[in-house]
Amino acid sequence: MKLDIISSPLLTDLYQLTMLQGYLDKGMTGKAVFEFFVRNLPPERGFLVACGLETLLACLESMRFQDDEIDYLVGAGRFSGRLIDYLRGFRFSGDVYALPEGTVFFAQEPVVRIVAPLPMAQFIETRLINILQYEILIASKAARCFLAADDRAILVDFGLRRAHGAEAGLLAARASYIAGFRGTSTVIAEPLLGIPGNGTMAHSFIQAHHSELDAFINFCRSNPGNTTLLIDTYDTLTGAARAVTAASLLTREGIRVNAVRLDSGDILTLSKAVRNILDRGGFPKIKIFVSGNMDEFSIRDLLGRGAPIDGFGVGTKLDTSADVPYLECAYKLMSYEGKPRLKKSPGKVTLPGAKQIYRRMENGIMAGDLLTIAADSAPGTPLLKQVMAAGGRIEDPLDLNAIAASAQHQLKALPAHFRRLAAAPPYPVAIAPALADLARETEAAVASG
Amino acid sequence: MKLDIISSPLLTDLYQLTMLQGYLDKGMTGKAVFEFFVRNLPPERGFLVACGLETLLACLESMRFQDDEIDYLVGAGRFSGRLIDYLRGFRFSGDVYALPEGTVFFAQEPVVRIVAPLPMAQFIETRLINILQYEILIASKAARCFLAADDRAILVDFGLRRAHGAEAGLLAARASYIAGFRGTSTVIAEPLLGIPGNGTMAHSFIQAHHSELDAFINFCRSNPGNTTLLIDTYDTLTGAARAVTAASLLTREGIRVNAVRLDSGDILTLSKAVRNILDRGGFPKIKIFVSGNMDEFSIRDLLGRGAPIDGFGVGTKLDTSADVPYLECAYKLMSYEGKPRLKKSPGKVTLPGAKQIYRRMENGIMAGDLLTIAADSAPGTPLLKQVMAAGGRIEDPLDLNAIAASAQHQLKALPAHFRRLAAAPPYPVAIAPALADLARETEAAVASG
Repeated sequence: MKLDIISSPLLTDLYQLTMLQGYLDKGMTGKAVFEFFVRNLPPERGFLVACGLETLLACLESMRFQDDEIDYLVGAGRFSGRLIDYLRGFRFSGDVYALPEGTVFFAQEPVVRIVAPLPMAQFIETRLINILQYEILIASKAARCFLAADDRAILVDFGLRRAHGAEAGLLAARASYIAGFRGTSTVIAEPLLGIPGNGTMAHSFIQAHHSELDAFINFCRSNPGNTTLLIDTYDTLTGAARAVTAASLLTREGIRVNAVRLDSGDILTLSKAVRNILDRGGFPKIKIFVSGNMDEFSIRDLLGRGAPIDGFGVGTKLDTSADVPYLECAYKLMSYEGKPRLKKSPGKVTLPGAKQIYRRMENGIMAGDLLTIAADSAPGTPLLKQVMAAGGRIEDPLDLNAIAASAQHQLKALPAHFRRLAAAPPYPVAIAPALADLARETEAAVASG
Repeated sequence: MKLDIISSPLLTDLYQLTMLQGYLDKGMTGKAVFEFFVRNLPPERGFLVACGLETLLACLESMRFQDDEIDYLVGAGRFSGRLIDYLRGFRFSGDVYALPEGTVFFAQEPVVRIVAPLPMAQFIETRLINILQYEILIASKAARCFLAADDRAILVDFGLRRAHGAEAGLLAARASYIAGFRGTSTVIAEPLLGIPGNGTMAHSFIQAHHSELDAFINFCRSNPGNTTLLIDTYDTLTGAARAVTAASLLTREGIRVNAVRLDSGDILTLSKAVRNILDRGGFPKIKIFVSGNMDEFSIRDLLGRGAPIDGFGVGTKLDTSADVPYLECAYKLMSYEGKPRLKKSPGKVTLPGAKQIYRRMENGIMAGDLLTIAADSAPGTPLLKQVMAAGGRIEDPLDLNAIAASAQHQLKALPAHFRRLAAAPPYPVAIAPALADLARETEAAVASG
């Protein structure tokens, strides 16, 4: 099955085409360095998680104009023959440096660096931001849920229906799996990405039956390997009692009821009462799964107050990153033909040049980052790695489970207050003297130029 | 060019498949009525705008399983031969009733009603919500921007890069165009949907040149039909003076500079100063275009305080519907085999049965809605219309410009406080006696059942 990501290179901003027309007319095809970074962390996020690199690389590898797309450009009448010839032959052949997916990062730190001829590096901007911002948003929100659950409950993505379009739903399944979720309700994520599917029944299934008990029994007979019963359609405690009845009847048929799901009401109180009903009914192994408006705070609070919950379905607030639906992120020209560049717009000043991040660890815990020029070296581990040379991957794509394992390992290396989602001073990111010097020199050159 | 919407029917929740397995095993294929509605309006929205119907109908018409998708389902091992045979032959053949796109609507009012055999009506749920919620969110946010601009400035969608994935960017261009925007920066929206493209240059274009003036001149020579100059890369007022210089030089070559764009800083003060520089420089016809973190409030405030702005690029906050990134919307079973159904979960009680909305107008202004059962009739205009019968469209798809004209006409018929985006009492939506009676009877039947 093909990865059904929208791949048209016309998924771009018109200004990329008009700028390319200008660059090509003036022969401005020298080497450019662009970096993607987040200017400021939103107050609701103490850290972010790099994500979307594999999606981006797949997009860069397959970025080609089809004949009908070229025909449209010709017919539009605003583009030169020179531009159209360039686009007809477009193949991404640049170098890419990036934080491995799952890397924790902070404001001003480059996540991806593109080194390519100016028109090529410019042309890919829109889709690059479109992919990276969204997967970072979701991985970062999911990481917070993962830290809140703290290995006490499993998490599953339920967000497709409220994601912003289909692609968002698919990418949210991917990003949340990297950040510690165990599965998704989105069916297509299993064949496309290998993410385990999860899900059972909606309220309509119960309503369509003459009785809740009938619905439970019919469902389990038809899906003996997937037996989670939704018990809140009419009354949760009555539903729990009927789940016990159903489980007793089904046991005689060799079918085991795996879990019940609560989707509304006072979850703390109800989960305890339901646990009690199940235990007294002789089914201490039936798990309790909860959904409905969940996020990192409800997960932390419910588990912290002793709610006997084994798993959470996290939907809307995950797939829309509801409290932080966008990032102040940018993809900026850092140097052109070897000369560093910067932007001085108020509130949007950039650090010029190609950069590297060095991370220091103390006793396995992140202790501070240093941001410097790429040519510099410093104590700690350099975080950006080259992943593409002249348009070709340096290594085969990583397995999603390997990315997820690495991401979860890193999340556990966050300083404790970040793991607790507590308010805390920002993580220390220092600017090295070499980078500060370059910024000063570049600014002086711009001011005098 | 094909409409590159992700069309796989596996873009669904796993529970749709497990429920279908249950329905098919029990022969539960009777006629079901589902309705999509919004439970409660978010406090930030006094009204919503129906949108996404054409996208949904196109999706329903083309919903087919491909061989590789069936192969996946067979290989997954959890699905019965009966279910797989059903899905292999799946064609949507239901009836669809809907509010025409662009119709203003309120909480509890059905936006779309699906009448189809139970498994078919159930199966389409996930993608139906996924499409409708997002287009409604964006049309509703765009409508607020349109009302704030009040014909004093034009609006353009700039949001693709921060939209949640590519499909969201494309659908946002569509939904905002319906609600009064004049164009989009998203190139593919022009060939696919006929929405005019818009856009000029990024800061990187300026930075890549030796001087801002060179950048302006090169750009206009390469794009003489599309000459908006971005003037805030280094200093906005200096940039405005250079735009005057560029315009003077270019005039001799027969190239007219159309506009300047401001993207940062104190826009109110800067736009006035820039207007002054352009006027004194002899270019009173050069327009001022503004972007950067715009929304309905900044548009209203800037124009209300006399900022001489001719157009706004609205990006991030539009395409993410940043203040309301999701709706409390639902697609619920309203009746099965002619019997009304309801859900009683706390806070989520539904009004049973197929419903219709009657809207009263007074002097061309919306005066109140009545929600009743579909079989009832009442004063005013019924808003839901049948758009599909047995899977076939009743009429050809409407032209996007016709939809947009109708939507904008309706927005101007909103009561004045809604048009001013002011806090106000909710718009009156009454429940007719026939519907209230049905709800009581259905609840009594459930309680005794």
